[in-house]
Parts: sequence; structure tokens; C-alpha cells
Amino acid sequence: MKMCNSADVVLQEFAAGKSQETSFNRVEKQKIKCGFGQLGVCCRLCSNGPCRITPQAPKGVCGATADVIVSRNFLRAVASGAACYLHIVETTARNLKSIGQNKGKIKSEKALNDLANTFGIEAKDLYDKAIAVADKVLADLYKPRFEKMELVEKMAYAPRYKKWKELNILPGGAKSEVFDAIVKTSTNLSSDPVDMLLHSLNLGISTGLYGLTLTNLLNDVMLGEPVIRQASVGFKVVDTNYINIMITGHQHSVFAHLQDRLIDDDVIEIAKSVGAKGFRLVGCTCVGQDLQLRGEHYQEVFSGHAGNNFTSESLLTTGGIDFIVSEFNCTLPGIEPIVEEFMVDMVCLDDVAKKTSAEHIPFSKDKEVEISQTIIEKAKDSYVKRRGNVTIDIPIHGHDDVITGVSEKSLKGFLGGTWAPLIDLIASGKIKGVAAIVGCSNLTAKGHDVFTVELTKELIKKDILVLSAGCSSGGLENVGLMSPKAASLAGDSLREVCESLGIPPVLNFGPCLAIGRLEIVATELAEALNIDIPQLPLILSAPQWLEEQALADGAFGLALGLPLHLAISPFIGGSEVVSNVLMNAMPDITGGQLIVNDDVISTADVLEKIIIERRKSLGLAVELVPVNA
Amino acid sequence: MKMCNSADVVLQEFAAGKSQETSFNRVEKQKIKCGFGQLGVCCRLCSNGPCRITPQAPKGVCGATADVIVSRNFLRAVASGAACYLHIVETTARNLKSIGQNKGKIKSEKALNDLANTFGIEAKDLYDKAIAVADKVLADLYKPRFEKMELVEKMAYAPRYKKWKELNILPGGAKSEVFDAIVKTSTNLSSDPVDMLLHSLNLGISTGLYGLTLTNLLNDVMLGEPVIRQASVGFKVVDTNYINIMITGHQHSVFAHLQDRLIDDDVIEIAKSVGAKGFRLVGCTCVGQDLQLRGEHYQEVFSGHAGNNFTSESLLTTGGIDFIVSEFNCTLPGIEPIVEEFMVDMVCLDDVAKKTSAEHIPFSKDKEVEISQTIIEKAKDSYVKRRGNVTIDIPIHGHDDVITGVSEKSLKGFLGGTWAPLIDLIASGKIKGVAAIVGCSNLTAKGHDVFTVELTKELIKKDILVLSAGCSSGGLENVGLMSPKAASLAGDSLREVCESLGIPPVLNFGPCLAIGRLEIVATELAEALNIDIPQLPLILSAPQWLEEQALADGAFGLALGLPLHLAISPFIGGSEVVSNVLMNAMPDITGGQLIVNDDVISTADVLEKIIIERRKSLGLAVELVPVNA
Repeated sequence: MKMCNSADVVLQEFAAGKSQETSFNRVEKQKIKCGFGQLGVCCRLCSNGPCRITPQAPKGVCGATADVIVSRNFLRAVASGAACYLHIVETTARNLKSIGQNKGKIKSEKALNDLANTFGIEAKDLYDKAIAVADKVLADLYKPRFEKMELVEKMAYAPRYKKWKELNILPGGAKSEVFDAIVKTSTNLSSDPVDMLLHSLNLGISTGLYGLTLTNLLNDVMLGEPVIRQASVGFKVVDTNYINIMITGHQHSVFAHLQDRLIDDDVIEIAKSVGAKGFRLVGCTCVGQDLQLRGEHYQEVFSGHAGNNFTSESLLTTGGIDFIVSEFNCTLPGIEPIVEEFMVDMVCLDDVAKKTSAEHIPFSKDKEVEISQTIIEKAKDSYVKRRGNVTIDIPIHGHDDVITGVSEKSLKGFLGGTWAPLIDLIASGKIKGVAAIVGCSNLTAKGHDVFTVELTKELIKKDILVLSAGCSSGGLENVGLMSPKAASLAGDSLREVCESLGIPPVLNFGPCLAIGRLEIVATELAEALNIDIPQLPLILSAPQWLEEQALADGAFGLALGLPLHLAISPFIGGSEVVSNVLMNAMPDITGGQLIVNDDVISTADVLEKIIIERRKSLGLAVELVPVNA
Repeated sequence: MKMCNSADVVLQEFAAGKSQETSFNRVEKQKIKCGFGQLGVCCRLCSNGPCRITPQAPKGVCGATADVIVSRNFLRAVASGAACYLHIVETTARNLKSIGQNKGKIKSEKALNDLANTFGIEAKDLYDKAIAVADKVLADLYKPRFEKMELVEKMAYAPRYKKWKELNILPGGAKSEVFDAIVKTSTNLSSDPVDMLLHSLNLGISTGLYGLTLTNLLNDVMLGEPVIRQASVGFKVVDTNYINIMITGHQHSVFAHLQDRLIDDDVIEIAKSVGAKGFRLVGCTCVGQDLQLRGEHYQEVFSGHAGNNFTSESLLTTGGIDFIVSEFNCTLPGIEPIVEEFMVDMVCLDDVAKKTSAEHIPFSKDKEVEISQTIIEKAKDSYVKRRGNVTIDIPIHGHDDVITGVSEKSLKGFLGGTWAPLIDLIASGKIKGVAAIVGCSNLTAKGHDVFTVELTKELIKKDILVLSAGCSSGGLENVGLMSPKAASLAGDSLREVCESLGIPPVLNFGPCLAIGRLEIVATELAEALNIDIPQLPLILSAPQWLEEQALADGAFGLALGLPLHLAISPFIGGSEVVSNVLMNAMPDITGGQLIVNDDVISTADVLEKIIIERRKSLGLAVELVPVNA
């Protein structure tokens, strides 16, 4: 079977040797793309359609122009992506509330106190505090659209809040904002592209502050805060002596009880009773990234992060996975025939992510004891059923020295409790600027992780420090760019910095949700410098964005005023108005800018140029300080 | 310019004589359709796509099969349509609440008391009752998904409620159910077609009971209950001696104040000051249908219903419209160049329906006095600006003897306060059965209103009484089928019934929202007969469904257990599973059934056959009673 390239050569060779079809193969079969869809000028909303915009038919039957169709498609995608993240933060807040109500396990009192302080909450004990914090989040999510959310002002950087207010894009109740965006983009409703683009920014704000940032901070309370450490990644983390449970999703707190339970003696005994040493969670997709990030607290149960979204199918073909628990995306439909062949049973804890062949056990924190027990029994049964009946073939793949556990707090702690050292390195020019390389992996921007890895290499060569979050970081760590030895690939100046600190030139913030942590870093840097975010020598790239969620993240980036690069157009090329607003007018609206560029070298040059311009505006040296100066 | 046919020959000739491009022309230019889109097997969710299912590429890159892609597209469309109706009922409930809070105008105390009784509400006065009723609706809409809505059991027919509970499709908070359907249909989330189809039914229930039924009942309180009467329809209702305001949308209660205000002396003076006799509202789309339905209360201000969705462009080319106020769909983007040419200013009262060239004045009941005044001034200004500068050409088009004002209550009242006479006519076979011909108009099922009108003619010929609601009824009345003289087109038996009662063979329930009224009729008939809805000799057809909303309506029909005919497939043909579940398995699930048939004669035969089978099951005569028996 033909297959696409991967930046991860070992993975690519492994996949090539397998008979199971994966996304790597299917992307070749789907190579001929519909040009209308790519340009965003196909409308399937009504029975007069589908309509497609051409020079001969410049409008849909209803009269919708390319501008209307493109902006409608775009807003609907952003709204759907926002919905995904807001679903995640809602589940997360409900889990925290339940912990408060049932006096459950709070793993970081500090994280809870920090949140309570931010929200202005006082409470008689930690449990009440947890309830009050969760309630504040839930109340905002459920407000009607005409009522602004209360926590936006408390969470946002003040100059940004002021800008958003001026632009009238402060979100009302987040779920209602999504809801009305869906209404707006239905048939014969909005035909105003600019209004729809501003609505996208509004959704970006709630995605960023609630779906991303707050999800992390709430999880910090329940799951423990990230601690910087070395960790193993890749397929090598699969140890066949254990019953291996692959976890996929984004709603990590639903696993909290299971994680702790799996290392209890009675549960280990269950594993031993069938010949295994115990249970292990194998990380995959964002929930794996997040567990890796917090790995300090899960050393016994978590064997490591195996890989990102498009690695999961190959991971299953190793035969080393005995059971799958999913609770959200990115759980590819492509795994279904593979799990059947490899006799791997699946359980899904949230019906939004239901796979046909998975059993659905609706998660509720109140029933977590029973649910964990069920999962343990089912995982054991699946192990017993399949071991000996399937081929196991785990390649030598991965690294043992990945630096992980990087967060807005742990990084600042590493720097001595202040951003000053980083700011000094930037000000002196030893670090030219910062690039946040985030988002998914896709297979169409030169192949699996190819654009992400190549762009990152170009940027570090230019002495630009890279921070990563999302499936992009799964790719970057599996090719070694998050290991300290990768310093050798950086420009002389950045290499020296990395080597002196013992860090890689690409810092691993974990899951896509951690884009919210990067936002905190950006905010705190801007605060320290007393400037607004768009003035920072900081760029954002989601080179291999895949999903609707990535577009909602991107809308957050634009609302923050960041330059946002994508290697693949978000299906807007067919509209002059939409392209113009996002690419040309945005700098004067929020300070942000969409850059679509599918060439690695030229992208790196463009991003470097922006960083240099911002350095100039800040009066910083634009010529690099010579090495060893 | 080439153009499609319309069942309305006068309209078609009028449009053919105009130089302005309308949807009638554009549908010809968009005649070549994308087969992937029509079959529902095109996926544009992620940057690995767009993917299209072919024999050579039977899965998307992610592994999604045709079944997954089709069901995902279908659920998202149903959810979006449900969102539209739920937005409408939310606005409507908020308006009623505001009336209660501000002791505003309650036009039907009886309607309010009926609702309060249904909901089990007692209150100290009418205003408190209005607030309590509205609050019950709003509370349900805003519940989280895991909390079932309280009013479903109070509103639904008991055997249906029981069935829905068995099927686990009772909706939780309606907005959250929509929200999670959007999440479910995002990238790499649900891949379970059956779960997604059941979710569609769940959304159908909230669409039907809240979006449709409750919107009507809440409006009855604020706008007055329908009274059966004769009315004028068609372009002839435009009287150029007045300042004519065309209204479009579905949220009628936002016009309540304006409607009353326009006939106040001081406002008439404003019109007179610029040479007009006063102001008139010209009905278009569903808000026009609804005003026509309640026309008894608006005889002075409402000039009549001009036509349905795809009539609005031609209506504007008469030059007789001076101003447009819109608040929802179906406000076609196609009107924008026409209003520019005809110098017609536009105001939009809800940003979800914002047209680029419209001024947006966000409606809030608290500011209605000021908003009405602004609209009056703007309408006057637009009138002054344009009259004398544009050509006015109003064709002789329409009828003056349309029977309107038919509702579940007024019809029962007409029958003497009991359904017994209708049941007797059905039982005796004088009326063979009932067909609800509902939904939109589109241009692709043989042309504008063509399938709807032809099918209706075939059904009445077969002595099947037709009830209509939605843009379909706009078409049926403009071709004369809702005038008493249309009895001559019915079969002998039905003709005799109609002539003896002085009614047409097609009864006009008004806007698409009134599908909720038809549901009440069906429920009350089933109740009177002590049977469940799927046993009734009643079929549902939305032959020319157009919008996502129509699919949500259709999902309600299937949940009710009704056979649902569509002339155009809801883009599901590419999935065997989806087609099978909706077309073949549904009778055993809810009792409903999807029938897709694009041939008029064969559709009429199929629907008649279902009615005959149901008559048989009920032990009713299947041979028609001879005329005069």
C-alpha cells in the first residue's frame, strides 16, 4: 500500500511493514481533493444545493456570495471547535464540583487557592472552595448570550480585555455564543461576513480562556501540577508484562480515579491473577500528553506517551495494547478495524466520542468507583482473551530523555521564580524570539508531522525558542527535538543557552489544551515588559492544524493579537473579504494576523521577519549577539 | 435569463418580465450538482480533507466510513435546524417574561391560562403567570444535558412519552443537547451512526415541543389566538398608498409593539406628513403567515400575506415595498442587490439574521418603544427617498377568499368544540385520511412549489384532507388551493364535505411553526380514539423541504411515529446504515418512517396506501362511501 511520509522515520518504517491499513495509506487514496471544498465555496446547507461558486455561477441559489458561504462555513467550524473545548471544560468543572461535594482528592491545594484568588472567592474550606470555583465556571458557561461572562475580565490581560470590549467581542454565556453561531450560519440567516468573523473572535476568547486555560487550571487541582522531569516517549513505553490500557481524549479528570486505582494492591492482584505484573496506562493523543506533563505524580501507572493522533493506529498494530478507554477525540474511526483484528476491547466514557464497536459507560464522578472497577475487569478480560492469540511486535522507537512537565509555573520556577532571565536572554538577543508551535498533526502538510518538524528545525536554527503544545509536541518529542541533545540543532546562540541550562530548544507544554498555558506565558511576559501581547517578539504557528478545535484555538490566537501561521488554508481561499479581513485587516483590529504558507523555508523567514520587526519596535537589538559574548 | 418553473403561473410570468436576477434564475446556473454532496459522502471537517467516498476510497483519511460521514452530516444539520427553532422559542419566552415584568399587553388571557394549567402553574395575577410560564420554558432550555426537561412530559402525548423514555431519547436541556450534537459531529468524535440518528430524534422532540408548539402557544398569549376568516394573499395585497414594510422572520413577538403602534394616530400622521395614508405590514415568509393566521387582530395594519420564501425577491421587484424589517430567516441573501436597486432600507432586529446591507438594531422588549419609533422614522425616510425614483409595477396576483386562521383550537371550535365530526367523517370514509403537507418551498423539486401543489392536488383527489403549515402553505394559497372553490378539485366525497362546510380541501395553519399545531391536532385525534399517533390514518410530507430547520421538523415527525415523505433526499443516500434505519427500521423504533420519492403520482399512491393500511388496522372501511351516502 502507498503511504505518506512521516517525520518519524522509525514509525514510518514500522507502519510500512504492517498489513493493516492506516490513515497513512488512506491519505494517498484521498489525494484528489475537491477544489470547491478547499476554497470554502461549497454550500450544502439546503435542498436547493449543494451549490458551488464558479465564475459562471458566482452565487448560490439563495443569492449567497462566496464571501457569505466561506464565512458561514468558517464560523460554523470555529463554533464547533469551540463547542468541543467548552464541553471539555464543563466536564472538568463538574468533576471538580463533585470532588468538593464528596470531599474527594484534591492534589494541589495551591492550584485551587490560586484559582480562588483569581476569581475572588473566599470559602470556609478547600471543598467549599472547589465547589465555588467550579460553580463560577459553570455559571458563566450557562449564561444567556446577552449576559457577559464574569471570569473573562478576571482571566484576561487587561489591555486585551479593553481591546475586546472596544471591538464588542466580549463573549456572553459561552454555550449560547456557540449556539447562536450555529443559528447564524444556518440557511438564509446571516449574510454578513464581517459580523461572522467577529463572532469567530468572540468564540476564540471563550475557547482560550475557558476551554483551554481553565481546563488546565482546574485539572491542576485534581491531577497535580506539572513538574519538569525527564520522561520516555514512543512505542518503547509499551511494556508487554503489563495489561496495557491505551487512553485517548481530552477530559483527563474522568481518568483521575482510575489512575490512582490501578496501582492499588488489590488491583495489581487482579492483573497478577492472569499473569501480568499490573496495569499500565499508555499515553496517546492529548490525554497522554497531559498525563506525561503531570507524570511526576503518576510514575508507577503511566508508562509514557506513545505518540500523537495519527500514531494511534500504528500503536495498536504493535499488538501491545490490551484495552482502550476513550472519552473524547482524537479517537480516529480508523482504529476500529484494527482493534477488531487485534481483539482489543474498547470502552467509551462520553457518548460524544462513541465508537460503533465501543461499549458506552456514561461517566459520572459519583459512580467513578464502580466505573473504574468495571474498566479494570474489562481490561483484564480483554487481556486474557487476546494474549497468545495476537502477534506482538514492538519496535525500538522513541526516546528516554524527553524534557517534559513544562508549564507556565514550572518554567518560571525553573528560571528562578521570575521571567527576568528569559526576558534578558530575549532582550540581549541570545534568544531572538519565541515561537509557539502548536495544534494537531495532519497528513497533508508534507506528511505526518513533516511540516511541524521541519519548521521547528528552521526556527531553532534562527535562534528562536520553540514552545509546543498539542499533537505537534507529540511529533516533536518522538523525533528527538525535545531531548537536551537537540540543542545541537539550534543556532549557535540558542544552542549555548540551551546547553548552559540543560534544556532542549523546543519546550514541551503537553496537550493542545496547554495552548492556554502558553497564553499565560505570553501574558506574563507582556505584563513584565508593560506592553500588550501583539508587541511581543512572539509568533504562533499551528502548521499542521487538523480539526475544528484547532480553528477555535486559532481564533483565540487572533483575538490575543498574535501572528498565526497555518500551512493549510482553513478553507477560506474562495472569499476575498474573509481572506482580507483575516490576513490584512486583522493587524488593525486585534493586532493579530493570519498567515497561510505551505513552504517551510519561506514560513520560517516570514515569522523571523515579524519577530525582528517587533524587536525593532521595542528598541531591542536586531543583530544577534555573537556567541560567547 | 433562464428560470425555473413555479406552480404560481402569474408569479412566474411576472418574474420572467423582470431584469433582476432572482433565485429562480440562479437555480438554473447551479443545476449541475455535486454527487458526493447529494449523497452526503463528502466530509469537510478537517485539514486532511475534504474527503469523498468512492469505491476506490471507501473511507476518509481518518477511517470514517460513508455511514459515519453521512450520519455526522445529518445530525449536524438536524442540530443546527433545532438550534434555529430553539433560538426562536427562547426569544419568544423572554418576550413573554418581559411583558409579565413590565405589565405589558396580554392579548389572550385564555391562552395564558391554558398554558399555566398545562404546566401546573398557579400565580397571583396574569403578569406573574406570564413570568412563571416563561421561566419554566427558559429553565428547561438552559438545563444541562444530564437533566431531563420538565415540560416534555406535560406537553407530550402519554404513549409517545413512554415510547421516548423506552428509547432513551427524552431530551435533557435542549440547548445542551444541540451543543453536544455539534460536539459529537466534530472531528474524530462519534463514529456511531445509530447513536447519532437517535440523537436526531431527541433533537426532534425538543424542536417539536418547544421550538414549534410552545412558540405558537406563547405567541397566542402575546399576539392573540387565530380566528378563522377570509383573507387576501398575493402581490395584490401591496397598496402603494401606504408606506409598506415587508417583514421576514419567525420571531413574531418582536413585532408585537410595532404592529400596534403603526395604527396609532400620531404614527399615521407621520405617514400623512409625507403623503402616504399610513403604514402597512406586508407579510412574507413565516412571520407573514403567522400574522395572516392571527389577522383577525390586525385587520388595519396587516395588508395580507404576499408569498413564501422564494416569492420575496419578486415581491421586491414590484417596487411596492418601502422598507424591510427582518428578525430571522428565511431572509434570502438574494434580496440584497434588489433592495439596493429599489432603494429599500433594511433593519435587522437579531444579529443571527444580519444582512450585510441591513442596519442591526438589537431587539430587546425593554426598548421596544424606542425601537418601534426608530423603525417608523427609518421606514418613512426610506419611503421619501425612494418613491418617485423607482418604478412600481404590481401585478394582478393572488386571491381574496383564502380561508385562514386555522389552528388546533379554531378548527375544533369550527367543528362544534369536538373532534367527533372530523372523526366521524374519517370513520365513515368520507374523508379517507389526513395529510399534513408542510415545510418549506424549494426550487429543485420540479420548481417553485411545483411538487407541493401537484402532490396536494393528487391527495385531495383521493379524498385525503390536506392540512398545511410553512412556506408550503404560502404556495398553496397563492395558487388558490386554500380558497373554498378549490373543493371542486377534490374527490367527490371530500368535495361534498368541503362544500357542505364551506371550506377548502386544504386547510391553512400558517407558518412552519404551526407544524406544532398539527401535532396537537394529531395528538387530540389519537386521544379521542384512544390510540397512539402511529395508528392514525395520517401522513406527513415536507415535499419541498429546504432548510436545516425542516430536517429538525422531520426528526420530530419521525419521533411522533409519522410516515414522513420528502421529495429530495436529506443527503443520506450514500449510507446504507442511515438509509436503512430511517427508511426500514424506523417503523419498529418509533412507528415513523422516512419515504424519499421524487415522483408525484407514485408518492400520492404510497401515502394513500399507508392511510388505507392504517384504516384497515383500525377496522375502518377501506372502500369509500359512495357520494351522497
